[in-house]
Amino acid sequence: MSLADSHPRHDGPVRGRPRSEAVERAIMEGILKLLEDGVPLAELSIERIARTAGVGKATIYRRWRGKEELFVDVVRAAEPPDPELPGTSMRDDLVALLEQLRQRGLMTRSSVLLHNVIAQMKSTPKIWDAYHAIVVEPRRRKQHAILRRGQANGELRTDLDVDVMNDMIFGPMLVRAVMRPDADLPEGLAEQMADAVLEGLRPVSSPSP
Amino acid sequence: MSLADSHPRHDGPVRGRPRSEAVERAIMEGILKLLEDGVPLAELSIERIARTAGVGKATIYRRWRGKEELFVDVVRAAEPPDPELPGTSMRDDLVALLEQLRQRGLMTRSSVLLHNVIAQMKSTPKIWDAYHAIVVEPRRRKQHAILRRGQANGELRTDLDVDVMNDMIFGPMLVRAVMRPDADLPEGLAEQMADAVLEGLRPVSSPSP
Repeated sequence: MSLADSHPRHDGPVRGRPRSEAVERAIMEGILKLLEDGVPLAELSIERIARTAGVGKATIYRRWRGKEELFVDVVRAAEPPDPELPGTSMRDDLVALLEQLRQRGLMTRSSVLLHNVIAQMKSTPKIWDAYHAIVVEPRRRKQHAILRRGQANGELRTDLDVDVMNDMIFGPMLVRAVMRPDADLPEGLAEQMADAVLEGLRPVSSPSP
Repeated sequence: MSLADSHPRHDGPVRGRPRSEAVERAIMEGILKLLEDGVPLAELSIERIARTAGVGKATIYRRWRGKEELFVDVVRAAEPPDPELPGTSMRDDLVALLEQLRQRGLMTRSSVLLHNVIAQMKSTPKIWDAYHAIVVEPRRRKQHAILRRGQANGELRTDLDVDVMNDMIFGPMLVRAVMRPDADLPEGLAEQMADAVLEGLRPVSSPSP
């Protein structure tokens, strides 16, 4: 897992202070090194992270409010970046997000480190909560916005709850990518799932293709 | 959480020896008592369970191979029982299973004990693996069998992978019932989800309703 070409992406809480990518990368790579050496997440103190990265504790606290936020950034930097949405249709935007989710599943399978990190994160409620607030909730808000635009454009039914339709669209890939490490994630799965489910989520008045 | 009217349901491994429901209930209620008293799952030894239930250790070992299997039975007895499948159509069978999943989600929300037990189970790999082998896998096999009958009857597409369609049908409810404790699970959701997704999973040649 390399952090080259990646850096923390903050569409969550705005911190409003300048960042040095080199310092941040050193800190995050320090954490990865400790995790690779088998240090459990629970034993990763800010002090130890600072020592490994060769920076002062204050340097870390200027950038992150605590271990939880820092750790969420490490996970996020290791995951595939949020895709550019093509914007050509609701369907194409959804396929792009489903494909990212498929890629996340493939990466978690191929990287023992990422796999362990995510497992440890899930069993550490404070970090899991931070990941939800900083990563999962903004992602869900973006998905809802795409669906609402689809409703406005006549691409999506308006008689079903947006949050329910969101789970109908993303739930199957989420289950395969995250809950079922043994499930196949073949190329083309994003398109296949999107097209099959959208067949049932089209406004009833619109013609079949 | 009461175990009255419930008993271990074994469609997993067959043990082939007579069972005494009263003794089993005493053992399982002993575990629930210990959990209610705040004893963590990891500290529940067979010895302590036997003492609480007022039976000998051999009585437990005659019925369960170990702590993991015993514990899976406790969780299973606390969950809603597997529904009778109406058998009137693939759609009706799927709705019955989706409704059971919705009920499981509602029960996990209303019972702090069941919620904690499931959380502890997930962070104990041996018990989680046993739950998968004894409960989850047979359930998935049953779902696949329903879908294959649906394909044979012309109710379901044959050009998509059965396992992918299975996740398309059950994934959304699974996500809402298990992964998102904040998501609504309103009455009628099982029918709504089944009908919307099956719209896209019908064989293309069959007429729209």
